[in-house]
Order: sequence, then C-alpha cells, then structure tokens
Amino acid sequence: MISPREVIQKKRDGCNLTAGEIAAFIRGYISSEIADYHVSAWLMAVYLNGMTIEETLALTREMRDSGRRLDLSSIPGKKVDKHSTGGVGDKTSLIVAPIAAACGVLVPMITGRALGHTGGTLDKLESIPGFDPKPSPERVLDILKTAGAVIMGQTDDLAPADRRIYALRDVTGTVESIPLITASILSKKLSEDIDGVVVDVKTGSGAFMPKLKDARNLARSLVDVCRKMKTKIVVLITDMEQPSGRAIGNAIEIRESIEFLKGKATEDLETICMALAAHMIRLGGRARSAGQASKLVYEAVSKGEALKRLRAIICAQGGDDRIIDNPDLLPRAAYVQEFRSRMRGFVTRCDAKLLGLASNALGAGRTRLDDVVDPSVGLYLEKKIGDRVTEGEVLCRIHWNDKQRLHDAAPLVEEAFEIKARPAKGRPLIHAVLEG
Amino acid sequence: MISPREVIQKKRDGCNLTAGEIAAFIRGYISSEIADYHVSAWLMAVYLNGMTIEETLALTREMRDSGRRLDLSSIPGKKVDKHSTGGVGDKTSLIVAPIAAACGVLVPMITGRALGHTGGTLDKLESIPGFDPKPSPERVLDILKTAGAVIMGQTDDLAPADRRIYALRDVTGTVESIPLITASILSKKLSEDIDGVVVDVKTGSGAFMPKLKDARNLARSLVDVCRKMKTKIVVLITDMEQPSGRAIGNAIEIRESIEFLKGKATEDLETICMALAAHMIRLGGRARSAGQASKLVYEAVSKGEALKRLRAIICAQGGDDRIIDNPDLLPRAAYVQEFRSRMRGFVTRCDAKLLGLASNALGAGRTRLDDVVDPSVGLYLEKKIGDRVTEGEVLCRIHWNDKQRLHDAAPLVEEAFEIKARPAKGRPLIHAVLEG
Repeated sequence: MISPREVIQKKRDGCNLTAGEIAAFIRGYISSEIADYHVSAWLMAVYLNGMTIEETLALTREMRDSGRRLDLSSIPGKKVDKHSTGGVGDKTSLIVAPIAAACGVLVPMITGRALGHTGGTLDKLESIPGFDPKPSPERVLDILKTAGAVIMGQTDDLAPADRRIYALRDVTGTVESIPLITASILSKKLSEDIDGVVVDVKTGSGAFMPKLKDARNLARSLVDVCRKMKTKIVVLITDMEQPSGRAIGNAIEIRESIEFLKGKATEDLETICMALAAHMIRLGGRARSAGQASKLVYEAVSKGEALKRLRAIICAQGGDDRIIDNPDLLPRAAYVQEFRSRMRGFVTRCDAKLLGLASNALGAGRTRLDDVVDPSVGLYLEKKIGDRVTEGEVLCRIHWNDKQRLHDAAPLVEEAFEIKARPAKGRPLIHAVLEG
Repeated sequence: MISPREVIQKKRDGCNLTAGEIAAFIRGYISSEIADYHVSAWLMAVYLNGMTIEETLALTREMRDSGRRLDLSSIPGKKVDKHSTGGVGDKTSLIVAPIAAACGVLVPMITGRALGHTGGTLDKLESIPGFDPKPSPERVLDILKTAGAVIMGQTDDLAPADRRIYALRDVTGTVESIPLITASILSKKLSEDIDGVVVDVKTGSGAFMPKLKDARNLARSLVDVCRKMKTKIVVLITDMEQPSGRAIGNAIEIRESIEFLKGKATEDLETICMALAAHMIRLGGRARSAGQASKLVYEAVSKGEALKRLRAIICAQGGDDRIIDNPDLLPRAAYVQEFRSRMRGFVTRCDAKLLGLASNALGAGRTRLDDVVDPSVGLYLEKKIGDRVTEGEVLCRIHWNDKQRLHDAAPLVEEAFEIKARPAKGRPLIHAVLEG
C-alpha cells in the first residue's frame, strides 16, 4: 500500500511522480483507502506545481481504466467524437454530430450538463419531448447503427475516477489546471473506443480559460497526451468572447441548430461548425484533405442529409421528431422582452460570460448540480459584435417566464452590451489549430 | 455563509485573506459546514503560498477561540509556559518546569505525545507509576497551587480547531509550514491564560525544521504574532543535530531528568535548560536581568528546591514519588546491549534523527497515533560529538526487550555514529535568542 502523504509531499515539493505512484494513488482513492482530504490536498499541489506530460498521461490512463470502456467493435467504421471545453450559446455538438454522421463517420458522443455560466448539450436535448439522454448500452449500439450518431450523458461506470475527482475539484478551487483538465477530458473520451477526437478549446470571456495563452497550453497538453495514447486528435482554439450564434438557452438553441441544418446559419457559428465537422470527417477517414472535407460538410448541409441525421438521432433516442418541421412544438417561454439600444453606433461588446449568467438567471442554467433547468427561457441576440445599430433598435430578445428572474437577468444583459461610435477591432474566430 | 471555494481560490492565487474570511472558514470547519477536503486543499495552498503575519494572527486567534480557555485568575502570580518544537532526548520540560516553579513562577504546561522520530513529554511522564496526564480542570488548579506547576496533555476542549487541523496536516503533508506551525503552537499556548511563553525552536537533523534558516523564520513569525497578541515571548533556537543529553526513550529520560536535578547534568542539556529556565523566570517577573535569572536557576538546582518541586508535581498528579530516591522503580528493559566503536578517534556525528528512529524502532515511540509505547526501552549515549574514543569503547547502550526490534534498531544506531581521526568543527548549542 502506497503512503498517500508521501505522494502528496512529492508533488508539493515540485518533484515528478512516477506512473506507478499516480496509479496507486488513484486506485487507492477509488477503493476508498485514500480519502477525499488526501486527494484535495494533492489536487492543490498539482494545481500549483503542475505536472509533466508523462504524469498527465499516467493520470489520464489510470482515470480511463477506473471504469468500463465502451465496446463498439461490433459496428464497422471509424468512430470520432467532438468535445468542447464549454461556452455560451455553444450548440456545435447538435450540429456537427449529424453532419459527421451524414458524411459516414460514426459519432458516439458523450456530453454534459449546464454548470455556472455555460450551457450543457444534454440539457438542450432534454427540451425535446421524449428525448432519452441515457440509453442503455445495448440501445447505444442500436442508435449508433441506425442514426450514425448518439448523443448521451456520461454513465456511472465510465471513468468513475474522473467523476469523483471532478466533483472534488469543483468544490476545492482546483478546476483550472491544465494537467487536470487534460486528464478529465481525455479519460472520458478515450473510454469511448474512438479512433479520433476533435476538441474545441474555447477562449475569451465566456470560456473557462479566458486567456489565449492558457488555451494554447491546454491544447498542447491535449495533443501531447493523446499522441502518446495513440489516438488521433485535432484541437481548435475558438473564440468565446461573444456567444456562438444567436440563441442562448435550451429549446431556443435546438431551434437555432435546426435552422442551421436547414441552411440558415449565423456566420460565426457556421465557421466554427464547418471547421469542427471537417476535422471530424478527416479523422474518420472520409476525406484526405481539409478542402475535400469542407466540401463534404457543405454538401451534407445543403442536400439536407445532416438534417435527416438529426431527425434520425432524435427518433432513435425516443424524441418527438415533429419539432424538426415545426420547432414551435418545443417549449416556449410565456413572454418575450425586447432589449433595445440607447444610442446609434457599432456593437463593440457582447460579453459571453455576462450573457451566460443572464441566461442562467432566467432559469436556463444551474448554479448547483441539483438545480432544475427551465427549457423554455433564454436569450436571442439580434446584434453581435461589429453590427451597426440605430437608436432604439433591438439588440437582444429575452425569453422569460418569471418576473423576478427577468429582473435579475436584465442588468446582466445591459452590462453585456457596449455600443460605440466606431467598430472595435475584430477577434479571430479560430485562434489556432493543433494536430497530433 | 462564506463560500469555502472562494477562500481556497484566493489563497491559491496568492492573495491575502481578511481576518473575517479566516474566521468564517475556521468556524465553518468546526461547525462542519466546511469539510475536511476543503480544509486540506486550503492547507496545501497555505503551505505553498504562505501567509502574512496578519493572516497568521487571525488564524491563531480563531483557533485559540475555537474552544474553552483555561481560567487561572483565581491563582495569584505570573504564569509562564515553555514549548519545544520537538526533538530527540529532549527532556527539558521535565527539568525547567520544576526549576521555574521553585523560583516562584507558575507553570501551567500543556505538552504532547511522541510522534515520528521525536519523543513526547507526556509519554515520558506516563512511565512513572500512577502518574495522571489528564487531570480534571479543578485538579489542574489544585496541582498548580500545591506544586507550582502542572504538566498535562491537551484536553479536547482546548483549541479544538488546532487538534482537527493538525490531524489533517499530518496526513496531507502540510505540517512544515511556518504560518501553520505558528498558529498551532500559539493557539494552544494562548488558551492557557499565561503571561508569557518561552519557545524552544529546534534546528538540526533531529528537528522538524532541520535548516537554521527555516527555524529563524519560524522564530520571527512566533515573535511577531505573539507581540500582536500582547503576550510576552522569548524564542530560543537550539541545536538538535545530536540528541539533548544522553538518554533517549521514556523512563530512561525521567531518570536523566532526576539526575539533572540532583546536580549531575550533561553539559549540553544543562546549557539549554539553564537558558530556558532563566527566560521563564524573567518573563514571570522573578528576575530583572538574565544574570539574576541564571543565578536563581543555579540556586534552585544546587539547593535541591527544583528536585522538591519535581517530587511535588509527581505527587500532585498521582505518581509514585519514590522514583526520585530510587529511579530503579521506573520500568527497565530486560536487556542492555553495548554498541562499541570499531576505531579510535573522535565522534564527529551522533545523528539525532537516526537515534530517534532507532529508539522508535525499539518501541519507545510511535509511527501511528494509536501505537502503544514501551516505557522501558531506549538508548543511552556514552559518547557524544567531540568526545574522544578508543577502539572497542562503548558509544551507546541499547535498552531492549524484543529481539526483532533490536535487530531493526541496530543498523540505525550504527549509521548514526561516525568516528574520524580529527574532531569536527562544533556547532553552537544556542543559535539565536529572539524576544517580543
């Protein structure tokens, strides 16, 4: 039996842990020989002193092996997943999974819940009547065979070490650590039996890593570890200074995703989704070049194949697919309040974090894990950074149900927008692409 | 209610916590609203990022106020305690408490147990048949009135926050932190209703802070915090490169202490005890100068008054005082093994830590808090650093009961001693004296 104190002290003193020490420490935690208080002290030491790629690799591997691994070998074809570090209005999963599936890539996608100012794909999908976010293992195989993609929540037996450690990081202020984030993301993804993964690392005010430098370090760490795990990876660092697309919420984002696949896409969302989907298709072996992949993505959307796949996914997971033709069947808020510009000029700020908090305040998100999400509320941005506005023009529509909640959200929306006489210098939508 | 995560994050990010934040955090821990895993992450952040004197002061005050405080106001006279950071063969408490009491200073001394390679005064006292280490609060007052001193274990209601935090530090590798050590020592001492305290900070191989630089920083921190708490303090930094005196163990150290008070003292132990006792007497208002205090100490020993006080303390705490006249009544090990020098020359090393570990291996100490201590075993050093030895001369006598334990201890004793042709450069016994 390893001494947890010695492992903690070694990391505390800035030394590197061996793969054996990391494995024993994580196994001891899972078997309850090592306590939460040991692990939280260790997490803080890792947060402050960092980890080498070799240590991060050992941690990732051990966390992956802490539970069951999906076995998709009965389904022929390459499997590729996409992961986002989380943002505001980030509905890319709902769009790229059907596109990639339409292009012949299998997508076994595990996704999460809203927390803090960011949304969660699973909550968005649950706004579709009947949708089952947790199909049984047998059903997962069926859905993947039928629809080419499945979008589901993390099950209890997949990387349980990650779930326990993440819960502890959340309450002990040790979330924003590059090796810990790397191991958390990859331990889950690599338990999915996939051939490749595309990771969308968000940067900007609405991201968990607002600074580009941190996002770059995380991207490099993900690439380095994934390479050593012999799994293909592409990391895109994309902008989250303002929300992606126009909708922020749950049902409202499903609506925008359907619109997107019907060919009506907001430009920034389109740029990011096209890039993510193209890389998924390339990793899935369905295109040899970026150009060829982009062409396939374009065709999958323009020919309606991607929309068909979204319908197939919804059907296969028990959801009501009539929402595709009639999005008004999705939950709708009782009231819509218009938020108008007080002056003319250009939108110079449309702050993702504040708008995420506003959406949260309306009831669309969670402050605690056990909060209940209101699927119908949210925001719809009529204007985004760089847009010209006149005095009195609508900047944003607030979809609300509860007057007190509207009252809490309004000042956040107010603060999120800034109008100036001249447009601000634009930020790139894709800051970098790394490949391993 | 304070957010524990925010307090942790603030310290993690190297910011200073307010007194209010520290108070709320500690109170939340005591009331169980804040969990062990929060506190251990915070302790690691404190360990790695440190604390200002103001933060350490707030932590000390809050830990002191977490429990009951002794009320000694019914006994007229100044009360002074002495604390040691722990060492090997460190029997100074058993010697200076009776000396200070003999000189008219009241000594309400709270002391601890052996742990790791260091001994504990309480374990040593328990080798005296009948000795009660935990008298009731009423008895404490009686003993103090009768004997002028009481030596007792920490009770559950004195600084309970310190006890819980110390237990957590012990298992999470966050012991050796200057602000945490400062708050731990002073929260206990300042709950004793004392007018002054003398702290013996040990440095050298057998100390918890082997490096002089760390010992100096701890000494300064203790002085700074105590000054702000309006309690007089003197800190001596004393040497623990080799054990204090000759005996290491429990009953064997009681024996050496009795010998000391009968006038037969080893030189190094005498130097340190004289200095500690003199400062206690000065803080207790019984002498105006160091010279006058030293004279009183010398007289208390030479006139047998200190020995009388030791007898009174033992009697008042229920112990068998016949051990004073006949130390053979103390527990004795079944066997004594002589450890001899293989060559002639000078002792250049007599390593305190290794000898402490050897004594521990014999059964005199504890590896875990619930280990049972053997009162009779230990070591007696015939030679110390600087002593001349001939080939075959006895360096040390090993008092043992169990052959396997002797087998474990012997290589440690072997390694502890080094004999060279020329004597090594001596180390000072007292490295520094700080006063606040």
